Amino acid sequence: MSKLSSNPKGTRDFLPSELSKRNYILDILKKNFQLFGFSQIETPALEKNTTLLGKYGNEGDRLIFKILNSGDKLKKADIDSLQKNNLSSFSNSISEKGLRYDLTVPLARFVAQHQNDIVFPFKRFQIQNVWRADRPQHGRFQEFTQCDADVIGSNSIIQEIELIKLYDKIFTELGFNDVVFKINHRLILKGLADYIGVENNLNDFVSIIDKLDKVGLDLVINEIKELINNVSISKLQILLEDKTISIEKLSSLFKEFPQAKKGLDDLNSIFEFFSLEKSINNKIRFDLTLARGLNYYTGTIIEVASETNSRLGSLGGGGRYDDLTSLFNMKNTSGVGISFGLDRIYLLMDEKNLFPDYLENSFDIIVINFGIKYLKKIFPIIDIFRKQNKKVLVYPDEAKINKQFSYANRHNASFAVIMGENEFNNDEIVVKNMIDGSQLNYPLSNVDSISF
Amino acid sequence: MSKLSSNPKGTRDFLPSELSKRNYILDILKKNFQLFGFSQIETPALEKNTTLLGKYGNEGDRLIFKILNSGDKLKKADIDSLQKNNLSSFSNSISEKGLRYDLTVPLARFVAQHQNDIVFPFKRFQIQNVWRADRPQHGRFQEFTQCDADVIGSNSIIQEIELIKLYDKIFTELGFNDVVFKINHRLILKGLADYIGVENNLNDFVSIIDKLDKVGLDLVINEIKELINNVSISKLQILLEDKTISIEKLSSLFKEFPQAKKGLDDLNSIFEFFSLEKSINNKIRFDLTLARGLNYYTGTIIEVASETNSRLGSLGGGGRYDDLTSLFNMKNTSGVGISFGLDRIYLLMDEKNLFPDYLENSFDIIVINFGIKYLKKIFPIIDIFRKQNKKVLVYPDEAKINKQFSYANRHNASFAVIMGENEFNNDEIVVKNMIDGSQLNYPLSNVDSISF
Repeated sequence: MSKLSSNPKGTRDFLPSELSKRNYILDILKKNFQLFGFSQIETPALEKNTTLLGKYGNEGDRLIFKILNSGDKLKKADIDSLQKNNLSSFSNSISEKGLRYDLTVPLARFVAQHQNDIVFPFKRFQIQNVWRADRPQHGRFQEFTQCDADVIGSNSIIQEIELIKLYDKIFTELGFNDVVFKINHRLILKGLADYIGVENNLNDFVSIIDKLDKVGLDLVINEIKELINNVSISKLQILLEDKTISIEKLSSLFKEFPQAKKGLDDLNSIFEFFSLEKSINNKIRFDLTLARGLNYYTGTIIEVASETNSRLGSLGGGGRYDDLTSLFNMKNTSGVGISFGLDRIYLLMDEKNLFPDYLENSFDIIVINFGIKYLKKIFPIIDIFRKQNKKVLVYPDEAKINKQFSYANRHNASFAVIMGENEFNNDEIVVKNMIDGSQLNYPLSNVDSISF
Repeated sequence: MSKLSSNPKGTRDFLPSELSKRNYILDILKKNFQLFGFSQIETPALEKNTTLLGKYGNEGDRLIFKILNSGDKLKKADIDSLQKNNLSSFSNSISEKGLRYDLTVPLARFVAQHQNDIVFPFKRFQIQNVWRADRPQHGRFQEFTQCDADVIGSNSIIQEIELIKLYDKIFTELGFNDVVFKINHRLILKGLADYIGVENNLNDFVSIIDKLDKVGLDLVINEIKELINNVSISKLQILLEDKTISIEKLSSLFKEFPQAKKGLDDLNSIFEFFSLEKSINNKIRFDLTLARGLNYYTGTIIEVASETNSRLGSLGGGGRYDDLTSLFNMKNTSGVGISFGLDRIYLLMDEKNLFPDYLENSFDIIVINFGIKYLKKIFPIIDIFRKQNKKVLVYPDEAKINKQFSYANRHNASFAVIMGENEFNNDEIVVKNMIDGSQLNYPLSNVDSISF
């Protein structure tokens, strides 16, 4: 026998047991997105390369899966570029479309394109796959699901508050009780940069700070040293080391920098709101070292982590971006959004046993198959069970009864319905409880009384 | 302003109003697949080209979207082939993966790959997108959703019966009452080919018959004339023209051809089952001219059509295939499955007004926003409404009240919750019915009594 085919490296097949758990999470997400007034949209997997390229930095461009043009368009292959080793120009000569890399750039494209068909502020959620040509490795996939909720067209801090409430309600419903929402603001980081004198290297500064969790404070300080003088570095080090630093303290330190004030005011409004009794189940905490890697954030930034298991990294994140749609020629449209890290949430829930047991049941009732003669008599009963929303599997073949029971057990069925010759003649069925083995006979005319 | 970006031709953005209707259909499909004991799986969009190519004929191979290899692998581009105009060999030199073309070949690959992790008979459903590089045209898309339910590893005719019952239950729940299930059997077509003497050209014969709906009987007869003699052609013409031809009649005509007998027996079992009272809501009909284009079918074939609107073509189809997994080195594994044509079902339901009105509501309740001071007092109430599974949207900004009401109307909200200065001071809210304009005051302490 030759080698079996398999799915490509970096991709996954989802078998029923895993998929039912993933869908359990996604159903809770969807329900709550809707309860908060978000409407679902979908965009195609395929986008024009002109939409995708140049939005994610050079590294991002390299990681976009490009689709080969079909038919005669291939003749336009730019062999010159290939021979000069200009591979990106070669690939652009034979590709016009690519697979979406995230849901954010497609959202900006969608909002700009359909601006006359949607009503602003536009609250949308989107749960779809994205693709990245990363080197496949443990826990990193080339195809994975993103789950985003965004509000486009409102500056109000109420949106940040609602999104934190949404995070809180969802993580609570998933069964987490150890989640912390870390909050910071890009304008506070701007204030910090002003304060230590690196305001001209703001993007570099932010991306160095962003690595703090991964590489530690010493390496971060070393990198920033290359940007500034020693006096400033010690001012920075003191601030970054102080895990209890407060917004009040920063307000006095940054009082000369007006942009920082806007950031500090925003966070004050958020914390003041959540100081209300019962307004939140999980913790919310100011974190001056939170930076979020993406360049497009301009305001509040947020990240979700498990306090008791931080090894996995963040379970979600988001923030405010004031001008994303301007990439597609639509100006002055502020947006704010959050996303959920499905794979990490899944892993942690599995570890903590947060999935309900019933997800293991492929179906509720198996109907033992002794042949079509018997099934004909049972089918009206099966219809009744299914109308009661019971999942009923008729064993596909007239196989030995042990094989049928073992099939039922492998699928964690709760009950078996049996009609042998005796029951056929007496117009009844046997209902066997597959957990405790007990069984009871019921006349066909009275199956409504069965309590499954 | 430069031209706005748009989604690629042949693909679609789904705005909330359209997507909620699509999801309404898909939710009914999913629920019923599960009630019949099917478990959901998902496979990646990306498959190896070796998995995809050669499975759909030459035309199919041409229509597979290929993914360009990344980085240095592009250097292996076979320029010779390009210059010799051997485009498929050129594209194979720079592509290893493609986008799945349907869900059936990935299912066969999945079953063969995971044969030790799944239990047979394996009942799976799958709802995912597929991609085809067809020339974009009205109603034909490059990216669309397939919805399939299949049973792998059972020869029993009970599966055909269950799948027809599943079709019947789903189309009934969607609101159709004019659906007909046309049934035929590949072995009956084989018998027909034997009977008129084209048994050596069976595949050609089937694919000509398959065009009957599109091109009409005359052209079909003309094409078949090239295969056989005149005596046979008139025998065939009589049979194809007889819209009421019965299985009994064919049993006597085909009695010399043993394979046809198996096909006729299978259909007899199916029709005998559905002759039972109340066993089916829609119609089921033998149709000797039903052929189904795909080569892999070997047994029963089925197609769903609207009797009052056949213009759209079939709303679904399926059949039995005895050896699909052998493509991936797993022999003797019979499968049978059905699929649903989501886009056509959608179009017809829209035309017939079968979608429930509530799908037009983006949310149930709007909370009018007069500023954070008021919202702070309302938020505990909002939490209560959301716990009652009401979809609540807090208007994002402190805008003019008319603008907020107009937003609510654009989204078909049913109620508005209002707290102005008076209500704030009296610890109450106003609930306004957005349909009839009536409004009532409720104390904050007694919002449980509100009947939305």
